[in-house]
Amino acid sequence: MKTLIKNGTVLTAEGEFRGDILLNGESIAAVGSGIPAEADEIIDAEGKYVMPGGVDQHVHFSFTYKGSKVRGFETSNAAAVGGTTTVLEFVNQVRGKGLIESIEDYRKTDADGISMVDYGFHVVMTDPRDEVIDEIPQLAKAGYPTMKLFMPYKGMFFHADDDAILKALYKGREAGVTVMVHAENADMIDVMTKKLIAEGKTAPYYHAVSRPPVVEAEATRRAIYMAQMADAPLYVVHVTCKEALEEIKKAYQNGQPIYGETCAHYLVLDEQDLAKPGFEGAKYVCSPALRTQEHRDALWEAIERKWINAVSSDHCGFDYEKQKHMGYGEGNSFADIPNGAPSLQNRLNILWTYGVETGRLSKSRFVDLMATQPAKINGLKKKGRLAPGCDGDVVIFDPAYRGTMSVKNNLEGVDYCPFEGFEQKGRPETVFLRGQKIVENGSYIGSKGQGKFVAGEPFGAAYGDSAK
Amino acid sequence: MKTLIKNGTVLTAEGEFRGDILLNGESIAAVGSGIPAEADEIIDAEGKYVMPGGVDQHVHFSFTYKGSKVRGFETSNAAAVGGTTTVLEFVNQVRGKGLIESIEDYRKTDADGISMVDYGFHVVMTDPRDEVIDEIPQLAKAGYPTMKLFMPYKGMFFHADDDAILKALYKGREAGVTVMVHAENADMIDVMTKKLIAEGKTAPYYHAVSRPPVVEAEATRRAIYMAQMADAPLYVVHVTCKEALEEIKKAYQNGQPIYGETCAHYLVLDEQDLAKPGFEGAKYVCSPALRTQEHRDALWEAIERKWINAVSSDHCGFDYEKQKHMGYGEGNSFADIPNGAPSLQNRLNILWTYGVETGRLSKSRFVDLMATQPAKINGLKKKGRLAPGCDGDVVIFDPAYRGTMSVKNNLEGVDYCPFEGFEQKGRPETVFLRGQKIVENGSYIGSKGQGKFVAGEPFGAAYGDSAK
Amino acid sequence: MKTLIKNGTVLTAEGEFRGDILLNGESIAAVGSGIPAEADEIIDAEGKYVMPGGVDQHVHFSFTYKGSKVRGFETSNAAAVGGTTTVLEFVNQVRGKGLIESIEDYRKTDADGISMVDYGFHVVMTDPRDEVIDEIPQLAKAGYPTMKLFMPYKGMFFHADDDAILKALYKGREAGVTVMVHAENADMIDVMTKKLIAEGKTAPYYHAVSRPPVVEAEATRRAIYMAQMADAPLYVVHVTCKEALEEIKKAYQNGQPIYGETCAHYLVLDEQDLAKPGFEGAKYVCSPALRTQEHRDALWEAIERKWINAVSSDHCGFDYEKQKHMGYGEGNSFADIPNGAPSLQNRLNILWTYGVETGRLSKSRFVDLMATQPAKINGLKKKGRLAPGCDGDVVIFDPAYRGTMSVKNNLEGVDYCPFEGFEQKGRPETVFLRGQKIVENGSYIGSKGQGKFVAGEPFGAAYGDSAK
Amino acid sequence: MKTLIKNGTVLTAEGEFRGDILLNGESIAAVGSGIPAEADEIIDAEGKYVMPGGVDQHVHFSFTYKGSKVRGFETSNAAAVGGTTTVLEFVNQVRGKGLIESIEDYRKTDADGISMVDYGFHVVMTDPRDEVIDEIPQLAKAGYPTMKLFMPYKGMFFHADDDAILKALYKGREAGVTVMVHAENADMIDVMTKKLIAEGKTAPYYHAVSRPPVVEAEATRRAIYMAQMADAPLYVVHVTCKEALEEIKKAYQNGQPIYGETCAHYLVLDEQDLAKPGFEGAKYVCSPALRTQEHRDALWEAIERKWINAVSSDHCGFDYEKQKHMGYGEGNSFADIPNGAPSLQNRLNILWTYGVETGRLSKSRFVDLMATQPAKINGLKKKGRLAPGCDGDVVIFDPAYRGTMSVKNNLEGVDYCPFEGFEQKGRPETVFLRGQKIVENGSYIGSKGQGKFVAGEPFGAAYGDSAK
Repeated sequence: MKTLIKNGTVLTAEGEFRGDILLNGESIAAVGSGIPAEADEIIDAEGKYVMPGGVDQHVHFSFTYKGSKVRGFETSNAAAVGGTTTVLEFVNQVRGKGLIESIEDYRKTDADGISMVDYGFHVVMTDPRDEVIDEIPQLAKAGYPTMKLFMPYKGMFFHADDDAILKALYKGREAGVTVMVHAENADMIDVMTKKLIAEGKTAPYYHAVSRPPVVEAEATRRAIYMAQMADAPLYVVHVTCKEALEEIKKAYQNGQPIYGETCAHYLVLDEQDLAKPGFEGAKYVCSPALRTQEHRDALWEAIERKWINAVSSDHCGFDYEKQKHMGYGEGNSFADIPNGAPSLQNRLNILWTYGVETGRLSKSRFVDLMATQPAKINGLKKKGRLAPGCDGDVVIFDPAYRGTMSVKNNLEGVDYCPFEGFEQKGRPETVFLRGQKIVENGSYIGSKGQGKFVAGEPFGAAYGDSAK
Repeated sequence: MKTLIKNGTVLTAEGEFRGDILLNGESIAAVGSGIPAEADEIIDAEGKYVMPGGVDQHVHFSFTYKGSKVRGFETSNAAAVGGTTTVLEFVNQVRGKGLIESIEDYRKTDADGISMVDYGFHVVMTDPRDEVIDEIPQLAKAGYPTMKLFMPYKGMFFHADDDAILKALYKGREAGVTVMVHAENADMIDVMTKKLIAEGKTAPYYHAVSRPPVVEAEATRRAIYMAQMADAPLYVVHVTCKEALEEIKKAYQNGQPIYGETCAHYLVLDEQDLAKPGFEGAKYVCSPALRTQEHRDALWEAIERKWINAVSSDHCGFDYEKQKHMGYGEGNSFADIPNGAPSLQNRLNILWTYGVETGRLSKSRFVDLMATQPAKINGLKKKGRLAPGCDGDVVIFDPAYRGTMSVKNNLEGVDYCPFEGFEQKGRPETVFLRGQKIVENGSYIGSKGQGKFVAGEPFGAAYGDSAK
Repeated sequence: MKTLIKNGTVLTAEGEFRGDILLNGESIAAVGSGIPAEADEIIDAEGKYVMPGGVDQHVHFSFTYKGSKVRGFETSNAAAVGGTTTVLEFVNQVRGKGLIESIEDYRKTDADGISMVDYGFHVVMTDPRDEVIDEIPQLAKAGYPTMKLFMPYKGMFFHADDDAILKALYKGREAGVTVMVHAENADMIDVMTKKLIAEGKTAPYYHAVSRPPVVEAEATRRAIYMAQMADAPLYVVHVTCKEALEEIKKAYQNGQPIYGETCAHYLVLDEQDLAKPGFEGAKYVCSPALRTQEHRDALWEAIERKWINAVSSDHCGFDYEKQKHMGYGEGNSFADIPNGAPSLQNRLNILWTYGVETGRLSKSRFVDLMATQPAKINGLKKKGRLAPGCDGDVVIFDPAYRGTMSVKNNLEGVDYCPFEGFEQKGRPETVFLRGQKIVENGSYIGSKGQGKFVAGEPFGAAYGDSAK
Repeated sequence: MKTLIKNGTVLTAEGEFRGDILLNGESIAAVGSGIPAEADEIIDAEGKYVMPGGVDQHVHFSFTYKGSKVRGFETSNAAAVGGTTTVLEFVNQVRGKGLIESIEDYRKTDADGISMVDYGFHVVMTDPRDEVIDEIPQLAKAGYPTMKLFMPYKGMFFHADDDAILKALYKGREAGVTVMVHAENADMIDVMTKKLIAEGKTAPYYHAVSRPPVVEAEATRRAIYMAQMADAPLYVVHVTCKEALEEIKKAYQNGQPIYGETCAHYLVLDEQDLAKPGFEGAKYVCSPALRTQEHRDALWEAIERKWINAVSSDHCGFDYEKQKHMGYGEGNSFADIPNGAPSLQNRLNILWTYGVETGRLSKSRFVDLMATQPAKINGLKKKGRLAPGCDGDVVIFDPAYRGTMSVKNNLEGVDYCPFEGFEQKGRPETVFLRGQKIVENGSYIGSKGQGKFVAGEPFGAAYGDSAK
């Protein structure tokens, strides 16, 4: 099967040009101008942008809070219609199990044969026994070259103390496994949370008050010191505030391989959304908390200027009615609301509409942040680029489309959309996954299980030039 | 009883002038030029410097390691001959007891009626139960307006986690109690210590390797973030490395009331002292560890430029033969050596000989660091200055004296001196404690129990101008 | 003649205490508590502050603009009633004359026998011929150890280019002569001024637009680089904006001996004063220009935190009616208005009322900035302190006084007061100059010519500890 | 004419892939994998790197010193064999002539019909009369959207003062003309030069002493302030020291569009080369002066990390025997030696051998620095990339080649090579200029006049994302 996409404006992380893309089988065969190929299908992309399929490196299809689970891979077509052709899922290590065993047990039953986009995994180490630490090098060999630790969440089984992070950094460094951290100070949040609850401040809004920017800045700085001690690279997920940003930037500029990611919702939603009437603020409870305009301005500048390397979704599909309400009513508080919000489908739309269309983000940097960099960071050599030989993951993007983000036209399977009513400019019109068309005219036309596992290579580009 | 000290060069934190000091009873009556007073004793200080008695805000007379106790207040005459007329002792809270109870139980039996210089106390909170936190405001009222927490020492009863520090900062701020921290990251040290021991690196030298500067910098930065969150002042004891120094300086310059102290031994001893032949390195095991020339240069600059506010002794009288050897032999390691070194007597001598005499320290700053600032920081209004109405604590210092520091001429009661063989220029020749002569011709002539307790006022000068 | 000032609160740069001051002849004889001296006069200072007489290191009694001269030393009693007992005057080198000759020609005719307070001089080098550069070392010997160069004022005879500044720095460094600069970029101002005039923007307000903060920041940074090249100390007069401040602070913190001064009017007046109706803005035309609240906040912080070393008046007595109006009417513009404003009398009042009384300035720092530091910087060993042996320059300050600043009660001899209508809290009630009372109950009672020349010592405290 | 380059490793600024490049006529037709095109010539690039032709944005073919001229465009084949297919020449404005007139008079007689590579121009404004300033917008329209000013060289006709630079920045900003500066402080150099000569220090080595890093840092900082005032982009040519680098980095990170370039020789030659025996140091006299290892380390880091945007040659073909010797002998000094050194041919070789081969530079960044960025900065849309539609400027680079840099195998026409004897790894083996082969097997096979003028577009990428 050969497909020729003609006459589009090809967008890459490096720039743009008017040209053609030839897909042959599962791969990109050529990028050119006036390619005279015979093809099974020829698509005229006149007036459209042709770009690599998105890579969303931060997705939660398996997260469970007090026994209640988020929507899983059966909703991964939401990624596809959102222009994302690869997702990376965080799987928590199960107590008593090994790291790889935890991933693979989940993978077999919940991802393989189900996913509608390509996928990989990060493991979350929750049980840093010696034998678990010793297993880290095998992660790299098994194609899972990244792992995460949660610095906050005092008292939860997945909280990691400095001891665990340091051991992971030392061991990961030997083996090419990049350590990621969710950086917030557990004790600071705990002290503040108890203080607020004691004062009767239990509404969703106080979630933000309980974890101010200093909480994130502290943990970020601490993780950087630990990475310095272990001489290891570090990847800080969902950076949300200027103070944390500043520390990452400084460390990087001092020569440490320290990288950061932010997420779509931190770029457009506000702390005040948590103060919406009734319990509606619960929809916006995620951690770190939403911030103010000042921080968003800093984030937009940082993603354009390459101080932050990727924009992911941190997608987390908890329903508002059943799940977010665990924090509602007598005896409950914001601290009982499951953290996270669904944004898998709208990641590219947010970045384009509120970044590219407003002039805050260049088109080439858009591609870099949503596809090229996340592929490099996670060692996915055939993803995120339109170079010959890479996987035929291509998005034909129609910049003229106008619409509205809403739960109504959303495949995430969750009962709300945090961007409800947001204006949308442009959309992924046609999407190819390894040469096969899976989205046409904005609608999903692929099939369950079409996505395949993609193994990452050790250390991705953490130490190479591309992440810089 | 009136004493007139005539014709000396009076040294204060502000400058110097040729003049006279009149002591009347326990106080300073006048500072002048050609004071025509009738006095019981007239001392000609021609060629000598006349300065306030030293205030050593960091002394350990009560510390116990695995049941083995340091030398106590019965050796406080070492302070007197060293030119120090006031000491501040750190008393660990006893498990099950309150903060004030812990101080006062110790004070009654081990300080009152024994001390040969004036004294006050800092409590070390080791047991941060709610009722203990609630006791903090009473500290200020009782004249103990400072408290310390130990961030390192994982697994020891006196280790404090972030939770305890934050609670102390919040509560202390309400009541005018300054929180002090020993800033080193417990987990970093623990991971590194186990790693070294596993590799057979157990000699005293590895004490330094197990707690490099990054360990101190991290904890310092973390404590600063916590102080920022609680909007409280913070005092970092024994700052030893340029990275920690830099964080304190930056925070202070950004408007936070963050202050630091260093100690005499960090200004002149070296990491390599820990590598002395045999087990002799154990003499130099203290925490944070001794550093290199680069760090000492930064410290000397910092004390002269007021980025560090005081130089104390961190005096800790463990014997080499019996106590330091707890870390000697099969099955033991550097981690078993009691931390600390005796330097009570030589604090001023070190600062003068290696600071003033080498041109690295001005004479007025010498006075500021060893007396004026520590008095202000700890709220001791009548100490550390030569102003009329202040206590008659005066040192007549002979700059022409030449000697050698040695355990042989030392009153600390410990079996070694970390400055053994060091050249000494100048010495406190005559010392007055509240108007009474307690040192004459360099020898102690006072009597046991002559020192009195001095209460501190809330927040000392932490928020005032003088600490700046 | 002996005077005993009893029962006051003595204020020094180091702190305060309740006590007495004994003046004997021209000097301070004793500072004490309950001094039982027989004295010719005994003053009860109960409820008053007793402090050293002010030192105003930046005064223009000799400045001439297009042939029109400011008020001179015959108005120096304004200093006395303002609590200032020593002034330092800037004398421009006369073309064709030497540096010392220029000072002394002026001094003989216009200062000696006229001044009512003590006085010294800085020379402004305007003619950097080789023989003039070679004369610099003699300045130090003659008691004039400071010199200034004007970086702005393109086309005026007193403008200095980098060449002159560098030569002065190199030569001054050999001889202990501190180089001062008025730091603004001449070309930047010139380009902007011509641009504004071409656009018809000639009103006084455009004076501020023609010299924005970047103009000052640039020249300050450039002067710092030159001082670095010559390895010489540098003193930047009238620092007004946070950008310049930041550069001075950074340089100092990197170990360069770089110091700065600000002036009373920059602490309380605003850019918008230049926009007052009619031509009244001309009263506020001084250079650098007045700034905004943001900059004033930075300056208040800087003086309290010791990043700026002194507050002077930059007093310049041009009349509004005759002299400021040189920039009025057809063909004239803001560029024709003589620069400068009168503030000799109100320096201490501004600092006390708007600094000490509002809590932005500590009392000890007030004394430091208005007296102690300027004395040290200029090598005036017997000025600015209350130490025995120093000159008997003393101010008894009544904090309970309430009044209003106005041209009506002003001795400056100028037809306006830039602080007209400003509330005043406290005032210098009684002032002594070398033991003689020259102000009583706020009124001048001394006599013309009572002030004497005071020679400065080389490099003042530029390299010592006291300026730090 | 179609050429297919098959099986090479394609290097772009974004990454690398194994693939083919099809040239059709003057352009790149396709970039692909297994392109089945019929072509007139098929080249097997197995084992070779295929990359865009180099763009050298800083070349002096027209410079004249005291009437003595450098080698001109007749030696531009040296660029071709060095892998550079486009050069940008600096033409000094002739006194009395306009800017465009000065360029075009030179262009007609000395470049058109002569050059062997494509070329563009920057004008050096030497005569900033009002009508010349007013001509600036026409530069952009004429395809010359960049201009340079020389801050040093006091007393030479091409020296520019701040006045000229500011006017150029203001006017250039309106029209999209990027201002470039040679940033060194004229007065600092002049004072130091006269000082050295007066001390008899006239040898070539003193050239470096006369213009230390502070001289460059100052002027760089000053130019940044001026750009800030005018709100205009600024391009600093030949950045050589870490202090200047730091200022550019800081300004850029604060949001100013400030960019910098360095040159091949600053990356590998040393200040000590100026101290070579006899007069040989004269070969290394260029401005700014060569620096030390510390600065080179900073530069290598900066080019890899994108703090510097391009590496050019600053090629200047003065002969050693006739021209460099103008500074030799009685009455002459280093100040009489014409500044500059020939490095047109070795730019890529230096970067590859000492950057890529040593691991200090990634291959993709190599391409970016030597081709992609300089094309963007100068608005050359069809240069510097391998995208379809771009000019067919391609280098096939053989990494296995081993040789030695020497005047013997050099086409620059100068009698020495500053890299004489340097080991060379890899070389441009085959070079295409707009689809025509001009270098084969490392030898030039093109013809005189084959190069064409290329117009730049206004502001290049100075404000776009690509320069970031």
